[in-house]
Amino acid sequence: MSEKNMQIVLARRPTGAARESDFRLVETEAPEIGDGQFLIRNHYLSLDPYMRGRMSDAKSYVKPVEIGEAMAGETVGEIVESRNADFKKGDKVAGPFGWRLYGVGNGEGVRKIEDARVPLSAHLGVLGMPGVTAYVGLLDIGQPKRGETVVVSAASGAVGSAVGQIAKIHGCRAVGIAGGPEKRRYVVEQLGFDACVDYKAGRLWEDLKEATPGGIDVYFENVGGEIFDTVLRRMNPFGRIPVCGLISQYDVTEPYGMKNVRSILVNRLRVQGFIVFDHQSRRPAALKDLTQWVSDGRVKYRETVAQGLESAPAAFIGLLAGKNFGKQLVKLI
Amino acid sequence: MSEKNMQIVLARRPTGAARESDFRLVETEAPEIGDGQFLIRNHYLSLDPYMRGRMSDAKSYVKPVEIGEAMAGETVGEIVESRNADFKKGDKVAGPFGWRLYGVGNGEGVRKIEDARVPLSAHLGVLGMPGVTAYVGLLDIGQPKRGETVVVSAASGAVGSAVGQIAKIHGCRAVGIAGGPEKRRYVVEQLGFDACVDYKAGRLWEDLKEATPGGIDVYFENVGGEIFDTVLRRMNPFGRIPVCGLISQYDVTEPYGMKNVRSILVNRLRVQGFIVFDHQSRRPAALKDLTQWVSDGRVKYRETVAQGLESAPAAFIGLLAGKNFGKQLVKLI
Repeated sequence: MSEKNMQIVLARRPTGAARESDFRLVETEAPEIGDGQFLIRNHYLSLDPYMRGRMSDAKSYVKPVEIGEAMAGETVGEIVESRNADFKKGDKVAGPFGWRLYGVGNGEGVRKIEDARVPLSAHLGVLGMPGVTAYVGLLDIGQPKRGETVVVSAASGAVGSAVGQIAKIHGCRAVGIAGGPEKRRYVVEQLGFDACVDYKAGRLWEDLKEATPGGIDVYFENVGGEIFDTVLRRMNPFGRIPVCGLISQYDVTEPYGMKNVRSILVNRLRVQGFIVFDHQSRRPAALKDLTQWVSDGRVKYRETVAQGLESAPAAFIGLLAGKNFGKQLVKLI
Repeated sequence: MSEKNMQIVLARRPTGAARESDFRLVETEAPEIGDGQFLIRNHYLSLDPYMRGRMSDAKSYVKPVEIGEAMAGETVGEIVESRNADFKKGDKVAGPFGWRLYGVGNGEGVRKIEDARVPLSAHLGVLGMPGVTAYVGLLDIGQPKRGETVVVSAASGAVGSAVGQIAKIHGCRAVGIAGGPEKRRYVVEQLGFDACVDYKAGRLWEDLKEATPGGIDVYFENVGGEIFDTVLRRMNPFGRIPVCGLISQYDVTEPYGMKNVRSILVNRLRVQGFIVFDHQSRRPAALKDLTQWVSDGRVKYRETVAQGLESAPAAFIGLLAGKNFGKQLVKLI
């Protein structure tokens, strides 16, 4: 191939809030493929909050991206050249190809997309890692029972919007927490949650109480900080809290001090951190159910699409600040 | 019977630290028993940190003691009069008879003590609620595996000392956290823990690191606050934290702000509050094992015994401040 590759590398590790200058767009030679490999032209890049962790060298569950190395991330694209018998030119795939236009794979961690019922981009959202995260975290860790109240923060986001809709399918009362009146309306009117609290309205505790008249049985945690602390006060005995993310804490230098830990004891709560990568065996079941629900219109999703690889850093910083609306993608083609 | 009864009632609800003036010793008429009831002369009263919660009217897992009502608590004693066919005069029993000399029971919540291998008082400690709490919390919630490291706070106390010794029996490395060099020595030299950290020595993080070279797999939490926050930083992936108590937080007006919540996510921890009363079905198995271990000398215990009912308030306040050494009892006879 003759085209150059473009990629975004980590220029330096942020202290406090991530900035655009922490990233750098670089042009490299087009990748060559060897035996058993294939070349992918990426169509969409997924931006996800967990990527903030990979920019830092604090101990975490994945190794950090090195300075000068391309940012890691999931993409969907099309195979344009192949020396692997299982993947042929024209195949659509999703895989860990990073913040770049072209990627090289050998099949490991790559998923062929054969189902044409939903658009390619959805395989990075509701039918990708965020959807599986919602499914595993809610059903396996949260274990909601019919009639219980499920609360989810970042409710209009890729994971949160799926959590609430899956909770509804399982016969629960679904209550979202989201920032601003527009997101709040979307969560209730478009996604069909029973209620949604706008945490920016300054009445978090009062609004949460009103939205959860029977207390909270499952809290799917995406944000951390003051919202987590407030929800703890509203948990019912034997409540479950799957901890999926702490987005409000990723960019701060001094973490929020959680005061309502007593609720864990008094209410015999189970608070459990999880990472979707530890639950790969559940992926086929999750994708089967989610594909059906999306096809049936029972699970809806929304995307915010930034145009061009060069817009990825600003879009990522916006994501950390909650400026996206639904799944944040970057269109690369 | 002709003797008067003496009891200690809640005089007022404490704000902040509990004080002796929050209690009042009152003399009442000797209780009369009806059909199906029996009269117990209490020999020992158990003092336990959870009682601080019952003095408060904040939402909790048990209803608060009312002002003017006798403080609730477990005792062991001897039946001195009975109109119940299942309990006869001279029987030794343990039950929820409160901070008083004489109590009336009908058999509900009462356990006959027929095993004479260990002293009566032990049935309030290692063979009573604290022992069962340690057993259920460590084995069922903490689920330690052979070779793992188990850390327990309040390690010289009634629950903590049992936790570490049960951990050793299960092939784990047992590390205690206790206050002061005397308790620290006792935990290692008498109870056989592998190490113990003196949290009062001012080097909590450094000493904890040194005592847990392989990190921490199970943390049995009795104290809360800064110790909990520090231990969180040292947890291994997939660690478990049974939350049994938060004694450092019971007497404060402003709770400690926990900063290391990120560890729950990054290490996929399971943090689970529990109350022994929810696990009554496990009591027979726990008492069978504990009785055997105590008889074999594999589980040791220590008691701090205050003399006379009137000494109970001061002993209880001392317990909250960690002045006891092992199980805190009040001798009533």
